[in-house]
Amino acid sequence: MTAQLRWPSVAGVAYGGDYNPEQWSREVWREDVALMREAGVNLVSVGIFSWALLEPKEGVYDFAWLDEILGLLHDSGVAVDLGTPSVSPPAWFFHAYPEARVTTREGVIMGFGSRGMASHASPVYRVAIARMAAALATRYADHPAVVMWHVHNEYGVPVGEDFGPQAVEAWRTWLRARYGTLEELNAAWGTAFWGQHYDDWEHVGAPAATPTTPNPAMKLDWARFTDDALRECFRIERDAIRAHATQPITTNFMAHQSWNTDLWKWAAEVDVVSDDHYLVGQDPQAHVALALSADLTRSVGGGKPWILMEHSTSAVNWQGRNIAKRPGEMKRNALTHFGRGADAIMFFQWRASRYGAEKFHSAMVPHAGPHSRVFREVTELGADLAKLESVVGSGVDAQVAVLYDWESMWAQELEWRPSDELQFRGQMRTWYERLWRDNVTVDFALPTHDLSAYRLVVAPSSYLVTADAAARLTDYVRAGGTLVVGPFAGVVDEHDAVHAGGFMAPLRDVLGVTCEEFLPLREGERGAVAFADGASIIGDVWQEDLTLAGAEVVATYASGPGAGGAAVTRHVLGSGQAWYVSTRLGVEELKEVFVRVYADAQVVPPGYPEGVEVVTRRVGEEGFSVVVNHRDEPATLNVTGTDLLTGAVTDDGVLEIQAGAVAVVRLGSHHQGGGS
Amino acid sequence: MTAQLRWPSVAGVAYGGDYNPEQWSREVWREDVALMREAGVNLVSVGIFSWALLEPKEGVYDFAWLDEILGLLHDSGVAVDLGTPSVSPPAWFFHAYPEARVTTREGVIMGFGSRGMASHASPVYRVAIARMAAALATRYADHPAVVMWHVHNEYGVPVGEDFGPQAVEAWRTWLRARYGTLEELNAAWGTAFWGQHYDDWEHVGAPAATPTTPNPAMKLDWARFTDDALRECFRIERDAIRAHATQPITTNFMAHQSWNTDLWKWAAEVDVVSDDHYLVGQDPQAHVALALSADLTRSVGGGKPWILMEHSTSAVNWQGRNIAKRPGEMKRNALTHFGRGADAIMFFQWRASRYGAEKFHSAMVPHAGPHSRVFREVTELGADLAKLESVVGSGVDAQVAVLYDWESMWAQELEWRPSDELQFRGQMRTWYERLWRDNVTVDFALPTHDLSAYRLVVAPSSYLVTADAAARLTDYVRAGGTLVVGPFAGVVDEHDAVHAGGFMAPLRDVLGVTCEEFLPLREGERGAVAFADGASIIGDVWQEDLTLAGAEVVATYASGPGAGGAAVTRHVLGSGQAWYVSTRLGVEELKEVFVRVYADAQVVPPGYPEGVEVVTRRVGEEGFSVVVNHRDEPATLNVTGTDLLTGAVTDDGVLEIQAGAVAVVRLGSHHQGGGS
Amino acid sequence: MTAQLRWPSVAGVAYGGDYNPEQWSREVWREDVALMREAGVNLVSVGIFSWALLEPKEGVYDFAWLDEILGLLHDSGVAVDLGTPSVSPPAWFFHAYPEARVTTREGVIMGFGSRGMASHASPVYRVAIARMAAALATRYADHPAVVMWHVHNEYGVPVGEDFGPQAVEAWRTWLRARYGTLEELNAAWGTAFWGQHYDDWEHVGAPAATPTTPNPAMKLDWARFTDDALRECFRIERDAIRAHATQPITTNFMAHQSWNTDLWKWAAEVDVVSDDHYLVGQDPQAHVALALSADLTRSVGGGKPWILMEHSTSAVNWQGRNIAKRPGEMKRNALTHFGRGADAIMFFQWRASRYGAEKFHSAMVPHAGPHSRVFREVTELGADLAKLESVVGSGVDAQVAVLYDWESMWAQELEWRPSDELQFRGQMRTWYERLWRDNVTVDFALPTHDLSAYRLVVAPSSYLVTADAAARLTDYVRAGGTLVVGPFAGVVDEHDAVHAGGFMAPLRDVLGVTCEEFLPLREGERGAVAFADGASIIGDVWQEDLTLAGAEVVATYASGPGAGGAAVTRHVLGSGQAWYVSTRLGVEELKEVFVRVYADAQVVPPGYPEGVEVVTRRVGEEGFSVVVNHRDEPATLNVTGTDLLTGAVTDDGVLEIQAGAVAVVRLGSHHQGGGS
Repeated sequence: MTAQLRWPSVAGVAYGGDYNPEQWSREVWREDVALMREAGVNLVSVGIFSWALLEPKEGVYDFAWLDEILGLLHDSGVAVDLGTPSVSPPAWFFHAYPEARVTTREGVIMGFGSRGMASHASPVYRVAIARMAAALATRYADHPAVVMWHVHNEYGVPVGEDFGPQAVEAWRTWLRARYGTLEELNAAWGTAFWGQHYDDWEHVGAPAATPTTPNPAMKLDWARFTDDALRECFRIERDAIRAHATQPITTNFMAHQSWNTDLWKWAAEVDVVSDDHYLVGQDPQAHVALALSADLTRSVGGGKPWILMEHSTSAVNWQGRNIAKRPGEMKRNALTHFGRGADAIMFFQWRASRYGAEKFHSAMVPHAGPHSRVFREVTELGADLAKLESVVGSGVDAQVAVLYDWESMWAQELEWRPSDELQFRGQMRTWYERLWRDNVTVDFALPTHDLSAYRLVVAPSSYLVTADAAARLTDYVRAGGTLVVGPFAGVVDEHDAVHAGGFMAPLRDVLGVTCEEFLPLREGERGAVAFADGASIIGDVWQEDLTLAGAEVVATYASGPGAGGAAVTRHVLGSGQAWYVSTRLGVEELKEVFVRVYADAQVVPPGYPEGVEVVTRRVGEEGFSVVVNHRDEPATLNVTGTDLLTGAVTDDGVLEIQAGAVAVVRLGSHHQGGGS
Repeated sequence: MTAQLRWPSVAGVAYGGDYNPEQWSREVWREDVALMREAGVNLVSVGIFSWALLEPKEGVYDFAWLDEILGLLHDSGVAVDLGTPSVSPPAWFFHAYPEARVTTREGVIMGFGSRGMASHASPVYRVAIARMAAALATRYADHPAVVMWHVHNEYGVPVGEDFGPQAVEAWRTWLRARYGTLEELNAAWGTAFWGQHYDDWEHVGAPAATPTTPNPAMKLDWARFTDDALRECFRIERDAIRAHATQPITTNFMAHQSWNTDLWKWAAEVDVVSDDHYLVGQDPQAHVALALSADLTRSVGGGKPWILMEHSTSAVNWQGRNIAKRPGEMKRNALTHFGRGADAIMFFQWRASRYGAEKFHSAMVPHAGPHSRVFREVTELGADLAKLESVVGSGVDAQVAVLYDWESMWAQELEWRPSDELQFRGQMRTWYERLWRDNVTVDFALPTHDLSAYRLVVAPSSYLVTADAAARLTDYVRAGGTLVVGPFAGVVDEHDAVHAGGFMAPLRDVLGVTCEEFLPLREGERGAVAFADGASIIGDVWQEDLTLAGAEVVATYASGPGAGGAAVTRHVLGSGQAWYVSTRLGVEELKEVFVRVYADAQVVPPGYPEGVEVVTRRVGEEGFSVVVNHRDEPATLNVTGTDLLTGAVTDDGVLEIQAGAVAVVRLGSHHQGGGS
Repeated sequence: MTAQLRWPSVAGVAYGGDYNPEQWSREVWREDVALMREAGVNLVSVGIFSWALLEPKEGVYDFAWLDEILGLLHDSGVAVDLGTPSVSPPAWFFHAYPEARVTTREGVIMGFGSRGMASHASPVYRVAIARMAAALATRYADHPAVVMWHVHNEYGVPVGEDFGPQAVEAWRTWLRARYGTLEELNAAWGTAFWGQHYDDWEHVGAPAATPTTPNPAMKLDWARFTDDALRECFRIERDAIRAHATQPITTNFMAHQSWNTDLWKWAAEVDVVSDDHYLVGQDPQAHVALALSADLTRSVGGGKPWILMEHSTSAVNWQGRNIAKRPGEMKRNALTHFGRGADAIMFFQWRASRYGAEKFHSAMVPHAGPHSRVFREVTELGADLAKLESVVGSGVDAQVAVLYDWESMWAQELEWRPSDELQFRGQMRTWYERLWRDNVTVDFALPTHDLSAYRLVVAPSSYLVTADAAARLTDYVRAGGTLVVGPFAGVVDEHDAVHAGGFMAPLRDVLGVTCEEFLPLREGERGAVAFADGASIIGDVWQEDLTLAGAEVVATYASGPGAGGAAVTRHVLGSGQAWYVSTRLGVEELKEVFVRVYADAQVVPPGYPEGVEVVTRRVGEEGFSVVVNHRDEPATLNVTGTDLLTGAVTDDGVLEIQAGAVAVVRLGSHHQGGGS
């Protein structure tokens, strides 16, 4: 599913960040490389925003400064991930080609002065980025510092969609390729509804400003089109580089933080997967979202080691309240990424910018300079990572797969669903957190993937399920797998059309249940769910009126609009079991479901104290457990082995880990699990 | 005031819904008509969104499929309310005539892809809809299935206003017709304020985006203009049909749910009044708003039976949380409409759409198919309605009139009023609910109507009162009527200008009081109102500083900015009494006022248990009480007669009604009222 | 710093308001002047919105009605402040010159129909206002009624910024003048960040709609440019008048209520400073903001008497809930302005408008007419002011300066700061209110002013501090001054660039402390601050990680992310002391800081009961204390003298003041201060 991934030639764990020397004097450059050495930096990304300096006038190039900085870095033993600057075309470009500017849904044409790529559909932009990529590749293909290419930056952010005329033209072309005939398009979009029938391709417009909600199948296709178009732009640059250079090529994703790129498809295009991740400061459990994004990144990359291309040493600058990391937090964050498969730990950015929109973003060298808490911790982290070379290249074990489908998310997040409150992202986070608290490590997957190796498949939010996907899940269960599915599942097909036969029709075989009607709750309303064994939990936002078709009722609604009906069901099919949970439950409440599901799946959570995160990387016979204590108090765990960071040996099988601390334990042969 | 209303030739209570066969295969059509027969359906609306299929290219018509479906329906004994598709011009239309698209206040031109009519002012649109209406009328004037014409759909929704150049041109023409000279316009709009004087008609623009609040008289006229322009579009279609066909013509209103059509004027244009109504799911008392809209619909139609053209079998799809109806609720809703004068009970729509923006809207045949709770209840309702033929044609008795004036609402909802929190809609709903809880049935009226037949006239929110209206209310009271007026009344004239003489000047004679100053409360602030007899209630949002001019003080402000001043006054004038309530009161608090007002008006609430809704239809000597128990427990009422639904006879005068149940009692001769 | 201020030739305290006779008939005019006499009015502002009447067609003037009204006023002894109508160009102007309309950031071109000037950059507008001003000045230079010129109205409201092409052209010219070369501009804006380098002036656009946050230095310059451009428009009119007329010229500010005019610069352009002030009704302590705005107005005018050009007799109309003033409140407001230096007390407006967007704005003659509470109080106020002639021309004593810098505010309010919750305006208000409650009268100042006369300088919110400003503050402290600085100070330079050396670098010398990292709190989070002597207070929103550089720690963080670190510091430098407060504190909490700061500064609050506001005007040896009791109960104060309003003599040194009352005491020689 993904291309053959290739690792850049950096020894050990790669460590560093975005480096923007163009913001500083040569004097500072020299201080920079000295400090990089002090901090253990061995890789930096250069040139991501440098178009205006590399091509100050159209067709006039200036590589001298870049030659100089690459030389300086190379001489200092710092390798370079060389960026292409396509995310930020220069002022002259937008002045010369105003038609390349991006148009919003409301028809506002966005000007220069911040950052953001041109319209993905602009022919002149596509020519310009190919030319720039080729120029860079020609010049630096053999530069000894350059070990990797970094195309663009965070595709889709801050703009992805374009509603201008060039994009509409490209959209029509895309639709012709997808549907062939207008008959097919009219059928797929259900244009008979509301009289939207098309009889000429030229009449098809973008889903821009309309009097009321546009056709949802059109909007879903528009999301696919935009994603495809962005990927075309990537391929243009990638291929221009590859024509001249052999280093691996990447572009930095934003897994579970940016929403308009289908990373399953993107990962197939890159040589190595890389990801940016930023904490949402307001969330006191932001490290759970971090773990999710790390697992997702690893999963789209097929389990191979990946690059944490950007995270922050402390606060970011673009949130309402930008919470600074406290002492030790950066290390916990970095090593959680590492534990979940990142063999490169990078930051935005090396040195804090004095100017511009992100001057309040933290950096490896903060405004306060090297004599600061942040730089001390950066240096300590560099020293820690240097001790972890033996882990490099290892994978991550997971017995559980969580289904994560961008197309289903796009469809579910369209307008006019039964309840605004039941959303893909929230459900994904809540169900993931249940597994996280149980220290059950997961991979993410699509339902169409081969799931046979997993004991348990979890589908927190699978609104769009194709007939093919449903058949595969059915086969998976029949063959002995355990499946647990969250509410509002199997509702529509790939065109956002309700399945013939009603909600959940394609899941009827596997789940043994369908839904007759959705029962959203009123604001503030809650409903009790009673299990046969007497346990009772509370759900909110959502209930369903289920029709049994073979499943047994595990729990019923004790209150709310569904009172008396089935709430949680279990269906034995072949050698497996399939569960359905038809209400929204919180992390605590889900425990009551998952304890039963784990039993069916023979998944045994290790029983570590809650708040201590443990994830194990394995290569061959060797295992390395990364242990992160998120609690404000120490914990003891039944783990035997040697902490690579401190050299401490826990031959008695009891690892003591201080509040806020991290250990990376090369595992001994004894049994692991449990603790207090 | 309204035209002679004409009922379509359907026997008994009409029952059915919107039917969109173009979304389905011929196979499904055959299942549809079979199910319609099973459900007792005798009327469906067809073709509302079919323009693109009826005229696939400009001037090329295809009526074959419509011929076929009308034949099929007719053969199955289902009559047809034939729609004109003007609410949804095809893609080719907007492509050929982009100037017909609607422009928003901010200048955004809205494209194709959802639904919504063209600009009401577009000449080409007006030609196209006349041509289509004529084509349909020519072809189906004599079709035996077609018993009624359904022009357009929900005028004003989702777009009514247009700010494009054609609309501005029409606006100037409208203004010339209204004012004759610019001197008149300048005077009416008070353009001396803020230097807005016009000396050329061409300088008058739309009240679109402006640096700050536009001239309010201009905005009020703009609302009138838009309403008039929409009605012109209706008349174009109606007259085109009438030139060829004789069946009654309607268009579906949205009483108390859509705001930019003055239904007093619209009702005068149709042959039979029809209305769409949808519950606001978040409101646990949504059935009160339903009753209000039903009474309003009947009232604009002059008390004649009307058609409930659309409501829902269960949830809708366009709210934040779309609450499904629970068992029995659809029946209660439907029979409440019936009790308040609807002789046709119709739904949107017959069969749930698998595609499009409204796929989560419930239907008579839901996605789950006929073997479902919803379809069972649909069939039961059809059987119930079949028992009610004897009620058809009867009217509804009301001793009380509530003033409801769209122009006053438009004026009051303009910007920059003393408090954003005091609004027409909220006041209307609260005061109506007081009467509803008391089972005091009301008609709605304009102050300029003949009110002499009513014992009591209630004016919850009469911000705009013309001198003529005030004189009529004065005459009404002087002749023995009782009037009760809510706060912020009689403030402005038809140009939204404060009356010469100050706030309430034209109501001074009738109310014996005027207002010197409005005293809005701060957020969260409340103020006590003390009655002479010791009763005390709490108001919020608003108080007034009143100047007595003949009225007696019934209650004074005990706290708040008006403390010490009059809060509620009563004025004896001629043989009548006029009350003024100068603060905002809740439904419970209003009881303290209405108990006194009822006494003056000799209105005697029947004393049924609260939460049991009883409304009585009468024809000649016969009376039929529709009894709806909204409570979660049974009730007994002093009602004598025979329940037409069950055949049960309550000769002892005591009707037992179960929780959530409905009875339609053909009344005996005994006294009615009271219960527990 | 300000021009030589000149007072209009009105004897005693000027009293009156905006007068818009064009809205009324000649009959009303005669009633008006009679009522003005009754109310003691001696000055009215005329013609502010009269362009359409004065020049009904381009180049055609009609001054007859203005001649007439000026004559009538003069005959009645009422002087005139004659307005130029440039804030409201007529319909014909915008029709003839559509390019003069204002364009929003999103590209919406705003039309006619409300009010608001044309684009400040429009050449044709500039010509038109110069011509109109010259025409008025020519005609009325020698009119005996006209004692002052009132140019425009509230510059910047409701529109100041323009993003249309003419404004962008002017912006480029302004930038060329400011920076000379593009190299300078690129350096100042830090265009190396995000690749924003310019190599052609024509490529520089406005900071309009962009994909994400625009360059902050660009936005800060845009604010300066807009302010300058508005001031250019003022100068065009002023100079056109001055060419013909000699009366003083003003324009009405909105100190601390409108934000895009730097009043330090504006005050230098006018002959006499005038200000509009409106209460924010929702704020129960709105009189504190009133006092702030009055002190700020006096301060920008260099301490000279100023004109309260507009305030309201009761409610305004443009807030969500427009709270009416209660009896006595207008007098308290008016005399607070007077006490803080206003020698003219004026209202918007004389007579309430029956028409237009502001019909619910209160006036001197309300809709209820002269027989009303409001007009009675207006007349009483006129009589009161007539007793205060001896105070006219006096100044206000202040030992304390508060730094108030528009440029710093503009910079701080740009996007993407560490916390949205820490804002200039809120901090300014809170810290001011601390001083207000202590009855410590303040002047406002810029850090670059000569501060040597002040015992204490308070800097609540000084985000932008230039090196020059920092040096002056350092000198001030070294020479014996006391300085207290609030959080998030000294962060950036004049280009919104973080100071080289880190946050607070330029304040290091004076404060003896810098900030290593900002520590915003999560929503709802709070943090304790513990003083060495055991006192403890709670802050919210913000903490900092401080690095000491000579300061002593006065209080430390007891909880929150900064726990254990310094919260409040004190630095002895030369003969002075400099305090730094690094968290956000409320008015009550600040007491704990200010009691210590006052001691350092030898500022002795007078000890009047809280809620009694006392401010003293002085001229030569004479002092006049304006005493305003904002409490609901009486108070006694140790004040000796004679109340000019009542004639009461407090020879025993004890002034009794009733709840809500005001006294203006000509002070005796005894000691003042204290009370209960």
